[in-house]
Order: sequence, then C-alpha cells, then structure tokens
Amino acid sequence: MDDRLFSKPIDLKDFSVKDGFFTPEMELVRKEVIPYQWNALNDNIPEATPSFCMRNYKLAGKITEERIRYGKARKPIEPSFPWGCFPEDRNNPEDKFYGFVFQDSDFAKWIEAVAYSLTNHPDPELEKTADEAIDIVVSAQQENGYLDTYYILSDLSKAFTNLRDHHELYCLGHLIEGAVAYYSATGKDKLLKAAEKYADYVGECFGPEEGKKKGYPGHEIIEMALVRLYEVTGKKKYLDLSRYFIDERGKKPYYFDLEDPSRVKPGDEDKERDFYHQAHRPVRNQDEAVGHAVRAVYLYSGMADVARLTGDEELLKACERLFDSIVKRKMYVTGGIGATHMGEAFSFDYDLPGDTAYAETCAAIGLVFFARRMLEIRPDRKYGDVMERALYNGVLSGMALDGKSFFYVNPLEVLPKACHRDERKFHVKSVRQKWFGCACCPPNIARLLSSVPTYAFTENSDTLFVHLYIGGTLKKRFGDTECVFNLESGFPFDGKVKVSYGSDVKTVGTLALRLPGWCKKPGYRIEGSTKETFEKDGYLYIKGEWNKGDRIELDFDMEAVFVRSNTAVFEETGRVCLTRGPLVYCLEEADNGKDLHLLSVDTGASVKVADFDALKVTGMKQLEAFGHRIVPDAEDGDLYTEYKGLNKKETSLKFVPYYAWNNRGEGEMRVFVAAED
Amino acid sequence: MDDRLFSKPIDLKDFSVKDGFFTPEMELVRKEVIPYQWNALNDNIPEATPSFCMRNYKLAGKITEERIRYGKARKPIEPSFPWGCFPEDRNNPEDKFYGFVFQDSDFAKWIEAVAYSLTNHPDPELEKTADEAIDIVVSAQQENGYLDTYYILSDLSKAFTNLRDHHELYCLGHLIEGAVAYYSATGKDKLLKAAEKYADYVGECFGPEEGKKKGYPGHEIIEMALVRLYEVTGKKKYLDLSRYFIDERGKKPYYFDLEDPSRVKPGDEDKERDFYHQAHRPVRNQDEAVGHAVRAVYLYSGMADVARLTGDEELLKACERLFDSIVKRKMYVTGGIGATHMGEAFSFDYDLPGDTAYAETCAAIGLVFFARRMLEIRPDRKYGDVMERALYNGVLSGMALDGKSFFYVNPLEVLPKACHRDERKFHVKSVRQKWFGCACCPPNIARLLSSVPTYAFTENSDTLFVHLYIGGTLKKRFGDTECVFNLESGFPFDGKVKVSYGSDVKTVGTLALRLPGWCKKPGYRIEGSTKETFEKDGYLYIKGEWNKGDRIELDFDMEAVFVRSNTAVFEETGRVCLTRGPLVYCLEEADNGKDLHLLSVDTGASVKVADFDALKVTGMKQLEAFGHRIVPDAEDGDLYTEYKGLNKKETSLKFVPYYAWNNRGEGEMRVFVAAED
Repeated sequence: MDDRLFSKPIDLKDFSVKDGFFTPEMELVRKEVIPYQWNALNDNIPEATPSFCMRNYKLAGKITEERIRYGKARKPIEPSFPWGCFPEDRNNPEDKFYGFVFQDSDFAKWIEAVAYSLTNHPDPELEKTADEAIDIVVSAQQENGYLDTYYILSDLSKAFTNLRDHHELYCLGHLIEGAVAYYSATGKDKLLKAAEKYADYVGECFGPEEGKKKGYPGHEIIEMALVRLYEVTGKKKYLDLSRYFIDERGKKPYYFDLEDPSRVKPGDEDKERDFYHQAHRPVRNQDEAVGHAVRAVYLYSGMADVARLTGDEELLKACERLFDSIVKRKMYVTGGIGATHMGEAFSFDYDLPGDTAYAETCAAIGLVFFARRMLEIRPDRKYGDVMERALYNGVLSGMALDGKSFFYVNPLEVLPKACHRDERKFHVKSVRQKWFGCACCPPNIARLLSSVPTYAFTENSDTLFVHLYIGGTLKKRFGDTECVFNLESGFPFDGKVKVSYGSDVKTVGTLALRLPGWCKKPGYRIEGSTKETFEKDGYLYIKGEWNKGDRIELDFDMEAVFVRSNTAVFEETGRVCLTRGPLVYCLEEADNGKDLHLLSVDTGASVKVADFDALKVTGMKQLEAFGHRIVPDAEDGDLYTEYKGLNKKETSLKFVPYYAWNNRGEGEMRVFVAAED
Repeated sequence: MDDRLFSKPIDLKDFSVKDGFFTPEMELVRKEVIPYQWNALNDNIPEATPSFCMRNYKLAGKITEERIRYGKARKPIEPSFPWGCFPEDRNNPEDKFYGFVFQDSDFAKWIEAVAYSLTNHPDPELEKTADEAIDIVVSAQQENGYLDTYYILSDLSKAFTNLRDHHELYCLGHLIEGAVAYYSATGKDKLLKAAEKYADYVGECFGPEEGKKKGYPGHEIIEMALVRLYEVTGKKKYLDLSRYFIDERGKKPYYFDLEDPSRVKPGDEDKERDFYHQAHRPVRNQDEAVGHAVRAVYLYSGMADVARLTGDEELLKACERLFDSIVKRKMYVTGGIGATHMGEAFSFDYDLPGDTAYAETCAAIGLVFFARRMLEIRPDRKYGDVMERALYNGVLSGMALDGKSFFYVNPLEVLPKACHRDERKFHVKSVRQKWFGCACCPPNIARLLSSVPTYAFTENSDTLFVHLYIGGTLKKRFGDTECVFNLESGFPFDGKVKVSYGSDVKTVGTLALRLPGWCKKPGYRIEGSTKETFEKDGYLYIKGEWNKGDRIELDFDMEAVFVRSNTAVFEETGRVCLTRGPLVYCLEEADNGKDLHLLSVDTGASVKVADFDALKVTGMKQLEAFGHRIVPDAEDGDLYTEYKGLNKKETSLKFVPYYAWNNRGEGEMRVFVAAED
C-alpha cells in the first residue's frame, strides 16, 4: 500500500462549527431530533408507533437475579415478518419483549447523536438523561456480557442461533459506536466497558478456534464498530474479530445454511445464494454491490477500515471494485442507493427508476461512511464527490427542514396519487412521516449530522484534508505544534470559501483541499507566505510554512448544469436533471403546478439563479429554466389518438434543491425532466 | 330501452370458418392446445406443474357411498396463498385435494373449448374422450347437486362458507359454460343436467328468501353463466339467480364481512372496502373499474347480460360507465387491462406503465366478453373497436404462434434482464411458458378462439351484424327464410373484405357492417340489387332484398398510423406506438438489436409496409420506420455527465405485430418509442 496516503477523521472536539448551513442543521438535531427521539425511545409520543426500546431495557434490567429463569419460563417469541413482536393492546402490554428484534439499536444511535451534540454543545441536563439511560441499559447486561433484550426477555439459550435474521451483532455494533462516541465526548466509560464486555463475550463465541461458532452477522455494522473499539482501546483483539467476520462471510458451506438447513431450497445447494446479505461469496471475490443496500455499504465500510489498518491490498481492491459498482452503475444522481424496495436492495446495473426508487436515507448515510473510509486510505476527489453528493442530497432529503418529520425512502419522482393508490409504490411516501416503527433513519441522520466535521476533515501528522467545506474553527497539530485554521464557507449555495491560518505560532504543514468535480474551473488565491502548491487526484495541496494571516480564497463557480444519466440508464433516456454546485434540484408542484410529466426543459437556454426565501433557508437559491408544457388533452378525451405532434406552450420551470422538497405540503415532484435539445 | 337495438351471437354451427388468419389459429387450438390441455388436466406433462384436476374428480367420484364420511374424516385443508394445496412429494400424493381451490374450472374450460372445436370439426375420438371425462366429473356430484372437489375431498360441511376466496361459484360458472357449450355442440345433456342440478342447489342456498345465504361470489363469472343456462333451458330461475348475485353485491353490511368478521380491520368498519372483488358498493352505483381485472370484466359482462334481458336501464348505465372507465382511462393500447400485478388489478386512472404491466391474457379475453355483450344491446363501433383491439393484440399475444406456450402477463415493454433480476418485474416473463400451475389463460384462449365467430357476428330476426371480419360461410335466417352469406377477409393484415349473398332464394333483410374506427375513409362498393344504405354509430347498414350474386366489397385502408396516449398517461409522455389496421406493432431485439430504449422514431417520415415471412404467418407485414439511435456511452463511462445533447445516428426501426412478439427466442421488446416530431 505504498502509494496510499492515509489519514483519519479529526477529533470532533477539535472543530467548532460556525456554518451558515450546517449550524442550523445541527441545531435542529440538538433541539428537535434528540429530544423527540428520547420521547420516542420511551414511548411518549402518542401518535407514533411505540418503540418499546427503553421499556425492553428496563424489563430486562430489573429482573437481575431471576433473569435467566424468567427468560426461560416464557415461551420463546417467534417474531413475525418484519421481525417484530407487537402487543395486541398497546395499553396493556405483557411483560415480554416488544418491537423489532433490533430495537435495542435505537438507544445506541440516540446516545451516539447525544455524544456528538454534547461535544459541540455541553448540556448538563441532556448528559444527566443520557447517564441515566446508560444505567438502565447496562443493568440489563448478563454476567457473561451478553446484552440483547430480545433474547434476555425470551430465551437466552437461543442467543446467537439466528444470526441471519435476529440482528444481535448489529445491535452490538451500534452499541459500540454509541459507547465510543459517548466516551470520547464525556470521558465516561460505563457504556464503553459494557460494550467491551459484550464484545469480549462475542469474541468468546465466534472465531477460528475450535468450539467457536463460525458465523457472521446478517446485518453488518459490527465490522466497522469493532475497528472503532480497537482504535479507542488499542486492543487488537477487536480488530482481529472484525477481520474474522469479514473473512468468514460468504465461505462455503454457508453459515446461514448451517444455522438452519431448511433455508436451502432443494436444487439450490450448489448455487450462489444470500446475495441479500452479501454472503454469496467471500467478500474479496465480490465485484458487484448487491442485496440490502444499507447492509452492503456498512460491510464495505468495515472492509475499508480493516484494509486500511492491516494493509490488506486484496481487501482494498475489493472495496475499490464495490465502490465503482455503486457509483458507476447503481447510484441515483442524489447519492441515493438501493433502487428497489424488494429487499431494500440494489437492483441490477443501470436499473435506476425514479418513481419506485427505494434510496433509503440510511443507505445514503452508509455511502457517506464508505466514501469517508476510502478517503482515509487515499484522498481522491472521486470519493469526496460521492460523499458530498450523498450528504447534501440523498441524506438531507430524509429530514424535513424543521427536523420534525422524515423520509425513509427518497424517490426521484413522486405523484401523490400513485403513493396512495398504486400498491407498487406504497413504500414511497408523498409526505415525510413523524417517526417509524422501524426507526433506523431519523437517528442515523442525527448521528451523521451531529458529527459531520469528522466527514469534512481528515488528517495525518503533516496534512489536513478538507473534503467538505464547512465553516468553523479547526485545531490542528502539525507534528508537535498545535495551530488553528479558520474556515468560512458559502456551501452548498455559494462556492466561495476562505481558509485562514489563525495561530500566532508558525508551523510547517500541508493543507489539502478538495476541488469538487462539478466545478469546471476552480479558482483559488493564496495570500501570505510562499508555499508549494500542486494538484493531485482532485485535491489542491498547499505545503509550506504557515504564518498568522496566511489566507486562501477558493472560488468554486456554482453554475447551473444540466446533467444526464449514462445512456445505459433506460429509465431516464432523453431526460436531464438540473444541478448547481453540490446540489441536485427538482421540480415541485408548489412552484410549477400539477402534471410535471408534461414539462420539458430547454437545455440550450440560460438558467436564472435567484434567491429563494419561501423555505426560509438562508442563501437558498431557486433555479429558473425555460421550457415547454404540453397542453393537456380535453377532459374525458380518448385514451389513444393519432399522433400529430403535441401542442406545447412556452413556460418557465422553477427548480428547488432536492433535499428541501416536500416542505410545503403534499405535491408532485420530479428530478429528471424531458430534455429539449 | 327503446333506443336499443338488440341482437344475439349467431349459433356457432351456422358459421363455417374459412379464414386466412383464424383458421390456422383455430387449428392450433384443435391440434395443439386441446390435446395438450387434456394431458395437463391428467398430470401427464412431466415438465409442467401438475394440475390435479381430473385426479381430484376421480378421487371425489370413486368414493360414492362413503363420500361424505370420507370428506369429514379428513382434516379440512386450509389452503395457503395463493389458494392452493400441493403435495410435498409429487410422486406420492395423499388421497386429498390438490391444486388451486379453483382447479375444477380447468376441466370446464377444456370441455368448452372441445365443444366449440367439435362444432366446426367433428372428431369422434375427441368426443369419446370428452364423454368419458364428463362421466368422471359427474360421478363426483353429491346427492344434493353439489359438485366442487375441493370441499368434497375435505369437508362438505364447510361448503359455501368462504365465498370470498374459495371459488365454488366461479367453478360452477365455468361448469355451466362448458356444459351449455357441450350440449349445444353435441346435443348430449349429461353435463348440462349436472350443471343444472348444481345450479338448482345453489339456488336453494342463496337468494332473498329467509333462511338462504345473502352471498355472492368472490370471483365472478356465474352471473353470465347463469344467463347462458337460462337462454339454453328457458328456465327463468337462472336469470333471477344471476340478477340476485348482481344486486346483492356490495350491499352493506358486506357479506364477506359477515362470512368472517375478522376481515374487517378496526377503524375500517365504515369505509368502502373490497374493491378487489368489486364489492365495495352496489354495482349500480359503481363508476370506476377497480380491483382484480378478470373478475371485474366477468362481472360487467354478466351485468350487461342481465340488463339486456331485463330491460334494466340503471344497470345498463352502470355498464356504460364502467366500459368508459376502462377504455378511456385504464386500458393499454393492446386492449390489455389490469395495470398492476398487485392483485392482478386495475390501477388508478391513466396509470398504464408498460414495463410492469399485468394485462393478463384472461382480462383481455374478459374485455372481449364485455364488449360483445354491449354490442348485443346496441351495435356501436366503440364496442366493436375495443373487442377487435383486445382480440388481435392483448389476447393473441397470450399464445405462441405454435400454440405451445403462453403468456399470462402481457407487458408493453420487456427487458429480459429486468425479468430475471428485478423482483418488481418477476411477474413479467420474457418468454412464454409451457403451462401454469394456475392455468387460467391457455384454456381461456382456447375457448375464445374456437368460438370466435360468435364474437364476430350477432343477429336478430331482420339484421346480421358483422363486428369482426372473418372469412367463411354464414347461414342466416331472415324471418322464415334461411340464406347464406359468403365472407372473404384479409384481416388483420389486409383491409379488403368481400361479402356475397350465396343463396338462390331471395330474401329481405339488413346487413350491418362495422366500419372500424382506425380507418379514416372506409371504402365500400355494393353490387347487385338496389338497397338502402346508411351509417349509424359506426356501422354501415345495407337493407333491402338480397339476390344471388349480390356483393359488397369493403376496403378498409390499413395505413400505418403513429398513435399516442392521452396526455394524462404520465408513463408514456413523448412516446408513440405504431399501429396498422387492428394491429398494434412493437419493436423486437431480433430486428433492431439490443437497447431499444435508445431508439426514437421520426413520426413525420413515411412508414414502409413490407411482407414479413420470418414468422411464417401468411400475410404478415413488417413496418419499417425511420428514426435515430442514441450512440451509447463508452463502457464503464460515468453514470452522470453534463448534458451536451445526445449523439444520435440515423437508423431504420422495424416493427412486428405485437401479438406475434417473442416467437424468435428471448429478447427485448417495446411498444411505445420516443417520438421525434
């Protein structure tokens, strides 16, 4: 791996955000999402499906001595699809586990978001709530370290017997991520110790040694979580366990078949199977992103982590192939991934329908994870561009501008009546929802947004990499010298960025600034002491001695650009979308009236960029293009008529940022529009 | 109903087919489909899913004395979705019912096709086989008349307890249709008597009288079948029973809820429900074709029958509204109906996606039924045009040109890899299948094609209506005089038609010839004795005295016409299809290479009509249009790029009749193509 250039994310504590765009987003998370989530975790939101999360922990934790007997005395709960158990009467639940089998992870994602929030914004009351929640969670931990309320409350003897479907290792993965974050934020290690104890128990149960299970999780995440645990504790056994799970995956005979031989349909014995879980073949031999999209990118993120830490060239090559498989053949222009709701999964190459898209918010988040991890190995614009695309479009579209409602599915074309009347599109919601029974996306957005500086900036001892442009103050240590950079950014609405060196001490080091792929002629001006500059893989490197007042001005021209899909994308032939800077735009009914399918856009005419105040986001721009609207047939007209051209009228088309769609009530939306040459 | 002009289908015996197009199709049914079906009914096709149909009848019939005990001794079989019971080991089935709960209808559809075939083509051996089959079927009939092997072989006490899902009345409907047809063809009434006896028993169980069930079938057909039974027996009780089922449907409280109160979800009590079964409200108040498409058009056909016979103006109005709902807002250009596979159902207005279409063959057949019944009430081109459209396109596409394989689903756009890899399109097959476990479509095609003259011609005492142009000799009785018309037709490939009066006797009467809506300037020439002619509702009426040698030559110009969908059809905006005469055309990979989505057609350029021999169908034409092909991006190119127009090359596009697609192996197909103005 000699040609690699490693870096790691900055410590979240080292960046103080002051950004026109992300500060409000992070404040939403702090003020809206985190308190709402806490209520959701405690079933205190009457209009939402109960989570049962904290209730399960309390139930599992209270019965300390009789815990095992209690569990065994009860009939094992066989969860029905989709993997949940729900009370018949919400007001009179029995004393057993309720919710999805992965409900424990809701707490873990919440505590992770809380940790990041506390880092930037200390809040003793919130920290007290968090500490109390941790007490409850830890009280449920078994002597041996096991800590999954689903089995604690049903039958502990069945623990780790259904890795494919029952998400224990997934929940542990999230628990580790939450525990590491909380420890890093507060220095408190109670949850970290519990996570370590559980991870140690998992290490006793799984591994290459005789007598241990040769399994791996049905839903990945533990791979990257164990790497974080390794990095915070320094204990190599966690890295080894992560690598074990990665290496074991997809080996034949398939572990999931050994777990339950009835899973193999007669005649399928020799076929590659379990694409859904990315377990069809060893990961090193995988070339195509397949199956459940969130699981896939979580796995690939873990693979990239392990490849980075172990210098495993073969594993890295697999990551590179899988990254290309996604971004060259399976990604929406919004950075959304997972084209089909059947299995929330990747479809085949170039199958990217806008109207039935799944493009789960969590999957776009997972793509951000994966891209950042590839950047940690090698800073290349292709990773940064994808990370930016996913973050500003397919991730942010998952949350309303007021932080109070969420999309799980992020389609590129919405016709509300189709969402209501066409069962094929019932997964597509035409308005954001308050909360979900399977509430993976809202807390996932919360933890990503509240830690977004760790995606924007990575570093090594002599270089600071700037992948995303976020305003604020960054502490950086070049060698032994600590210094400060101040950043100002107009992103995503304005391409002007200023970076200034803010310390009195001189220091020698390199700044590497991403030159976004969407900007044709990035402008930059360097003021102050002379430095060496060069461009490599889409990054501008500025190397030399830094003195107070040194200053870089970047100007990334954000012109509106019509973008088309590859000709192989059969669903979007002859259509274009409009982008500006990192943002993908869309047409909404609110600005353009109904029947968006009748509109076409003149790709030769100029596009007007105008301030757009209707959504009350500072700096937001509307794009106005010229085009035509097909005059609709008379009401009750014939369904089929001889074609004699179409009657069209000139019109202007008004585009708003995709991430901000559906903040003005229900209405049609589409990203791709018919192109007029 | 004073402004109506009633007619009824000709007796199949009165028409001797000699037609370049339909004779071969009917011969296929006789030589291929009927024998194959018989083998299928008897589980003699190793590569096909067993039908169990005749086996169930034999099992039910053999145990004459102990029949009821036998049934009760067995645990009732609760069929799993989709309503079938299947043996774990095909070679060692247990002595119980197997197959779908409606498996009995396979026999009924077969005997109906056999009957029509015997009418035109006596075949003592086939008739003997049929008689033996009837013996088996009738042997299973219970003392009280009941005759449904699913309950006979499980638990007779449960008969008629699940009308919504268990298809007993549907099977009886088919049995009646088969029995009437066999009686009409052969004069043998054994099956007819059995059907009557079963119908009588149903009449004892259902009706307005106290103590009788107030039910109606989950799957309609018995409505129109009972009308046929009334018409052949003259017994009004069958018409009354049909009307009862029609009137009862959709009344509140819903019968299906009374049958099983657990079907009502809490909160839904007051909502309209059961759209799937067209049972959401009384049929007279229905305005929109909804739910399972086959069931819907079968119901509407029965409604039209009853409206015609009872002079029920309100019911007729409902039929007219529902017909318009289909043909103005819910029908593919092929006459296919049922836009979604979710429930094999109608979608909402104008939702007509080509690639995920369901458009079941049986539904197009049902639309033919419905249209013919509307024609029986009032000869109007709008019904004849739809009947023709469905028959020549959406129905015939269901069967391969060799009569050996079948489509259940008839999409308008096929990408084979999507059928293999996209679960959302798994219902779409890229090649016709040998047979289906749920084998409704192949026998339905067989019975329609072998009785097609009864759709082409209807009559009353003074008028012969020609709705479809089929060659052959037709016996017609005007008043008391029997005479003969000879017809020659080049349909569907050539629009020249000759009708000559072939009798020595003079007679007075009217010929009413449909002037197809697709023909802009129909030409006709009348030779011989002077007659009154006039056009009304798209029919040419020729009225007067007929003398030997009187002759009408019709010339319906079949020019190639580009057709577009209504602007409200959002899936096909900017696209056209190519039609010629009654045929819809399509592009196939075999003629145009892969990536059909890259093609566009110049709607202004002329279309060349050429003989097309590749499929060995006499007279078939290929259409050649001018257009362009987008030059595909380089392999492994970027997924999204700035739009700078598209690189296109001139090309010719070759279209073949849609019904004949997929007779040259697997490949892409599409009906609608991007239009160049």
